[in-house]
Amino acid sequence: MAVKASRSRRRNNSSGAKVGTVRSAQLKFIPLGGLGEIGKNMYVLQYGDDIIVIDSGLMFPDQELLGIDFIVPDISYLEANREKVLGILLTHGHEDHTGALPYVLSRLNVPIYGTRLTLGLVGHKLEEDLPALKPVMKEVRSGDFLELGPFKIRFIAVSHSIPDGVALSIETPLGRVLHTGDFKLDPTPIDGRVTDYGALAAEGDKGILLLASDSTNAERKGYTPSERIISGTLDHLYRNYRTRRLIVSSFASNVHRIQQVADGAQHFNRKIAFLGRSMVRNVELARSLGYLDIDEKMIVQAEDIGKIPDNQLVVMTTGSQGEPFSGLVMMSRGDHRQITLGERDAIFILASAIPGNEKLINNTINRLFALGCEVVYEQDRQTHVSGHASAEELKIMLNLTRPQYFVPIHGEYRHLVRHSQLAQEVGIPQRNIFVMTNGSVLTFSTRGKPRLKDKVQAGAVLIDGNAVGELKSFVMRERWDLAEEGIVIIAGALDEDGSLIAPLEIETRGVFLSDDHEKVKQEVRTAVARVLKEHKGAFKLEAVSKAVRNRVRDILRRRNSSYALIVPVFSVVGKGSHSSDNWIEKDFF
Amino acid sequence: MAVKASRSRRRNNSSGAKVGTVRSAQLKFIPLGGLGEIGKNMYVLQYGDDIIVIDSGLMFPDQELLGIDFIVPDISYLEANREKVLGILLTHGHEDHTGALPYVLSRLNVPIYGTRLTLGLVGHKLEEDLPALKPVMKEVRSGDFLELGPFKIRFIAVSHSIPDGVALSIETPLGRVLHTGDFKLDPTPIDGRVTDYGALAAEGDKGILLLASDSTNAERKGYTPSERIISGTLDHLYRNYRTRRLIVSSFASNVHRIQQVADGAQHFNRKIAFLGRSMVRNVELARSLGYLDIDEKMIVQAEDIGKIPDNQLVVMTTGSQGEPFSGLVMMSRGDHRQITLGERDAIFILASAIPGNEKLINNTINRLFALGCEVVYEQDRQTHVSGHASAEELKIMLNLTRPQYFVPIHGEYRHLVRHSQLAQEVGIPQRNIFVMTNGSVLTFSTRGKPRLKDKVQAGAVLIDGNAVGELKSFVMRERWDLAEEGIVIIAGALDEDGSLIAPLEIETRGVFLSDDHEKVKQEVRTAVARVLKEHKGAFKLEAVSKAVRNRVRDILRRRNSSYALIVPVFSVVGKGSHSSDNWIEKDFF
Repeated sequence: MAVKASRSRRRNNSSGAKVGTVRSAQLKFIPLGGLGEIGKNMYVLQYGDDIIVIDSGLMFPDQELLGIDFIVPDISYLEANREKVLGILLTHGHEDHTGALPYVLSRLNVPIYGTRLTLGLVGHKLEEDLPALKPVMKEVRSGDFLELGPFKIRFIAVSHSIPDGVALSIETPLGRVLHTGDFKLDPTPIDGRVTDYGALAAEGDKGILLLASDSTNAERKGYTPSERIISGTLDHLYRNYRTRRLIVSSFASNVHRIQQVADGAQHFNRKIAFLGRSMVRNVELARSLGYLDIDEKMIVQAEDIGKIPDNQLVVMTTGSQGEPFSGLVMMSRGDHRQITLGERDAIFILASAIPGNEKLINNTINRLFALGCEVVYEQDRQTHVSGHASAEELKIMLNLTRPQYFVPIHGEYRHLVRHSQLAQEVGIPQRNIFVMTNGSVLTFSTRGKPRLKDKVQAGAVLIDGNAVGELKSFVMRERWDLAEEGIVIIAGALDEDGSLIAPLEIETRGVFLSDDHEKVKQEVRTAVARVLKEHKGAFKLEAVSKAVRNRVRDILRRRNSSYALIVPVFSVVGKGSHSSDNWIEKDFF
Repeated sequence: MAVKASRSRRRNNSSGAKVGTVRSAQLKFIPLGGLGEIGKNMYVLQYGDDIIVIDSGLMFPDQELLGIDFIVPDISYLEANREKVLGILLTHGHEDHTGALPYVLSRLNVPIYGTRLTLGLVGHKLEEDLPALKPVMKEVRSGDFLELGPFKIRFIAVSHSIPDGVALSIETPLGRVLHTGDFKLDPTPIDGRVTDYGALAAEGDKGILLLASDSTNAERKGYTPSERIISGTLDHLYRNYRTRRLIVSSFASNVHRIQQVADGAQHFNRKIAFLGRSMVRNVELARSLGYLDIDEKMIVQAEDIGKIPDNQLVVMTTGSQGEPFSGLVMMSRGDHRQITLGERDAIFILASAIPGNEKLINNTINRLFALGCEVVYEQDRQTHVSGHASAEELKIMLNLTRPQYFVPIHGEYRHLVRHSQLAQEVGIPQRNIFVMTNGSVLTFSTRGKPRLKDKVQAGAVLIDGNAVGELKSFVMRERWDLAEEGIVIIAGALDEDGSLIAPLEIETRGVFLSDDHEKVKQEVRTAVARVLKEHKGAFKLEAVSKAVRNRVRDILRRRNSSYALIVPVFSVVGKGSHSSDNWIEKDFF
């Protein structure tokens, strides 16, 4: 099936790829996110006045980004070129490829193209976050062609840890760009949907100008095992813990793994219950769209768990990364409404730690052991396989597609470097490999070598709670200062001469007070009084505040070993200014 | 050599193990730290009125302990029984076994016993932290006996990732307690000092009442490889990067690894330079005490690095865990005074990540790649071996010593549980195994089974900067609130009727302000004015503050999506209270 999209309604003078003027335009590949990091994938392909965007992902913050919920790409470049953007193509449904859509679409309402499961997941998320927005979502299938302006896009099936992933082969007037999406070459995927070698080879035969390929596992030697080996682990576990109630935790989006757990349940005559919001939602969606085959009769509702004997039940839940409010973590804390764990339970954590989550996962496992559960996790067995191609598979991709130029994408800097070394091993000359950074522009012209010189604005937009906006770096610095040392507030009312006319108020938050802190407070009061005295006659609020800050800082360091933030807030009361509401309203509001 | 310690000078009525009344006393094993965690090891052995302490370690905090530098055990129990404490026995020189000594000794000045390197490291630390304290430090060697009150202690050589480690076999009137310290069964240790199987077996033959054994690697199957295999890795790397300057990062305390790097340097005709404070200090100490054999002529001082050709130099430095101010991290940031890295350099990180450090290490590696360096780390080769025994070695220890009772120590809960499962595999009945927690007391009497029932105070003392004291949990909670959301301070001067008599001051720190924050501030002012109006006639400061807090919270959530901490600080100015300095001094100071 070929989907032909209508041309952007906002433009009517540019008439596609066939016109001579456009033919001589430049082709630009611009990563706006995903390079030098795992997350917030967003790649721009621009030909002349036409832009397509590949993916719109979010990234979860490091712990040092205090209070930040997630990070999305800076899309200033797209906003400045909004009339050129023809649409967003999604490679698959993971959040690091789709999670920024609520942010992006609320600024840039363009059509989205993706496969059925991808759009299913995205649609749900958009409905939740932006109920008013009715995005244009167009479903495509692997094998489809899509024409968007000068771009002729072919969607190619790839296997990954979520079903329905695609690579994109994008024909442009200057040559073909192949974007692999996230992929592995699993020879025996659970859904039988093998990465389409044939299509990739065919594109390779036609000639590929630029390959942009997933670098996540470039450091791993050999091949990534097939997802199917989890069935072997599960078989062993189902047999080994026959008498226990089984709790299995995995990624809610790993439909293939959920299928394998359900298949095991069926084989060993257990019913299956799903707990955890995203697990329940994804199972429902995947079943309704036909990506998950579980007999209705096998499924137990959360409230009926207690009615099933231990040895006839498996509970599938979230929390494999130790996420604070996930199913498994709530259970490990004894805080789950529907289930109480104990010595009768065996827990299988079918995942490995995403770097940075190790502590959270360890803490969860420790709590489960303390409850008396048996716990099986990555130290014990092969409980996880990656969704990304390892070094040998990456070489196969390079050999299948034989690109003229190569850009490693989707990875930290070390992954990109390793991937570029692999590319050299299979014979791509180093000068044809570009290790790019977000915002850098790789420009192809009709003549000569591509140029990596220009830069567009790119970076991270930090999202704090519901506030969608850019957190200034000074705010993060203040948060760190507050976090590490706390704050001391010195408040007082002064008259116009700078004399204190009410007791000085000292408030602290997050400050470790020494045993003699009352004495310290007294010393602070005395110091403030002295400062006020010194400034008498030439009272200036700013100078007084500064002096108070310095003097109090010294005292706290010396007496309390505290480096707390010190905030003096003085109110200056005008002569004879005893209040009238009227006056207040006028002067200050 | 047998060291016989004098009895505690503070007591003279208790006369040792031979007296009948004492013979019928109970023997107590009390972990004060090290169980349910990796770190702050401290184990107490008490017989009647005599106490010995094994190790005094610190723990480094998780990131969620904002501003906390390290954690030491709560030693209330020891302080309450200070006259009973005969001394502290150190198993080896790692900080998780010795790092709390400055804290402990400043509260409890008792003699310390340890091997030469251990005391060398500790002495240095104590001199730095507590120059006034002159601790009594008594050197022991493996093979020595030491009599402390009713305890007859034999020091037994064990191999570990730092030289001079010992296990302790402690004879008490009720039986022998064997504490393994941190150990592995490296058959080919770099210093030739193999774990003393013979001594362990001999103790086993005499009969061991209680074995307390290192659980760190209980999850790892098989055997921990010998430290010596690092030489193989190094040999390959020295050959493979012949033309480059080499930078090697490892733990500053891993003297064996430093020796191997130096041996390689000598073999491949390179000079060696040491950078990083703890690296320089430890190398100096280990060389002066004879634990490190490096020819003076091979060593290059930091300031002379530039004079040596790339292919004739190896630089050994700290930073293998991505520690912010360590050698390698400063180099990766381009901030190191003595060395600038680039394409001429190959970096070997001879360590693996301690859980929780993954992100810091990854970031460092990424920065090194971005500088153009080649980097070799644990993804590429065997760049690290553990210092702790794996499952099969733990079983050997259990079989050598054949204890009547077993307590897994030194590990998170999961390690303790796995270790207890291993003990069952080698035939120790489950009822004779005690998975303990910090502060629990295992009590042995002359008759009957040991009892695990009593509890003493135990826990974590958080150390923030130079302040040595206990951080209250509410302070940590406040720090988290501040860190995640920031703070809004509402300050104003009120008259006695609760009317504002000066402009309201609004200060924020760490708060993300929306674009229309001036409007938000205005709304806050209006709301405060309304609250004050509402409370007029019955003005109570507390009620006003509470109402302001609630009202402002609503506004910030609604208008700014901010959940900031809100701190109203009102100064109430008394009638006719325009200042006199005199009045202030009297009333408030």
